[in-house]
Amino acid sequence: MAAALELFGARDPEDVSIDDVASAAGASRALVYHYFGGKQELYVAALRSAALQLESRLQAQGGGRALDELAAGLQRYFDFVEEHAAGFAALLRGGPANRTGEVGEIVDGVRLRLTRLVQKQMGVEEAGPALRTTLRSWIACVEAAGLDWLEHRDVDRPALERMLVDQMVALLGVAAAHDPGVARLVERLA
Amino acid sequence: MAAALELFGARDPEDVSIDDVASAAGASRALVYHYFGGKQELYVAALRSAALQLESRLQAQGGGRALDELAAGLQRYFDFVEEHAAGFAALLRGGPANRTGEVGEIVDGVRLRLTRLVQKQMGVEEAGPALRTTLRSWIACVEAAGLDWLEHRDVDRPALERMLVDQMVALLGVAAAHDPGVARLVERLA
Repeated sequence: MAAALELFGARDPEDVSIDDVASAAGASRALVYHYFGGKQELYVAALRSAALQLESRLQAQGGGRALDELAAGLQRYFDFVEEHAAGFAALLRGGPANRTGEVGEIVDGVRLRLTRLVQKQMGVEEAGPALRTTLRSWIACVEAAGLDWLEHRDVDRPALERMLVDQMVALLGVAAAHDPGVARLVERLA
Repeated sequence: MAAALELFGARDPEDVSIDDVASAAGASRALVYHYFGGKQELYVAALRSAALQLESRLQAQGGGRALDELAAGLQRYFDFVEEHAAGFAALLRGGPANRTGEVGEIVDGVRLRLTRLVQKQMGVEEAGPALRTTLRSWIACVEAAGLDWLEHRDVDRPALERMLVDQMVALLGVAAAHDPGVARLVERLA
């Protein structure tokens, strides 16, 4: 699984063959087929494992201010993006059209759990529409910024991470102007 | 093509068959195969046609303030989202894993041309890293907000559109704090 994850992360998943995975893992092609059934299944298994890894890294350390936790989380997120550059880019680029829908479900699952994680850091039980849209938008910002950074690499990662934290603050400010509940939250976090 | 577009827009593309398209278009299954070769090809052709439609609707009317143009463009974008609800959701949900890569290219192409359109409205020839990331992030916000709205429909579309315009202003403000070039642009647009 580690070998598969590394290969799918380092190259566009389209370009990885079962043979590549088998030889990287020091196993036979037949054994890989035996355990996973096929390339699509192997890819989905690798993806689930990557998603788990990412989420366990992002678990809040606790104790800090919400924005400091957010900054620390972003740093770990970008560590992950950098380690799994090609896989991350292949995963998030373009639309879905994944025949089985499993890939889409994994990606959406990660987004949902990241949203919950951020909410928890903010001490929010249930997000109303304005906060929910805002958190979802911000996660989309982070993904878009990650892809853009992998493509261009013309900004410092720390500068980009600071900009994303500032974006969260700015987006929360917008939501606060549209929803008194968010306004109270922002006051509490300040 | 119009029949295909309507079907793919109204239902998850996975659930549309060649037979559905043929009967909606009043054509034989054989004729649909003759012109398009198969369901994937038909889907890609319908998608290209939808992308063209969206982009032609978003062409700036010209003359207005950049932010008013943006608000008007957003309204036309959400008209499109509402008309093609299921197709839009299926297209943007989850990751790619599109075997041929064509779907991803179409989606990315639309994003790129939307970015250029917004830049043109702002009178920007070449975007530096901070502005480029910001515009890309904002388009990701619009897509995320569109998906969220289709799922929940618990906010008014006009309120959501206003929030997205405010988000653009806020994100430009953040970029301006990180990049003097964007700061000059924001001053010029004000």
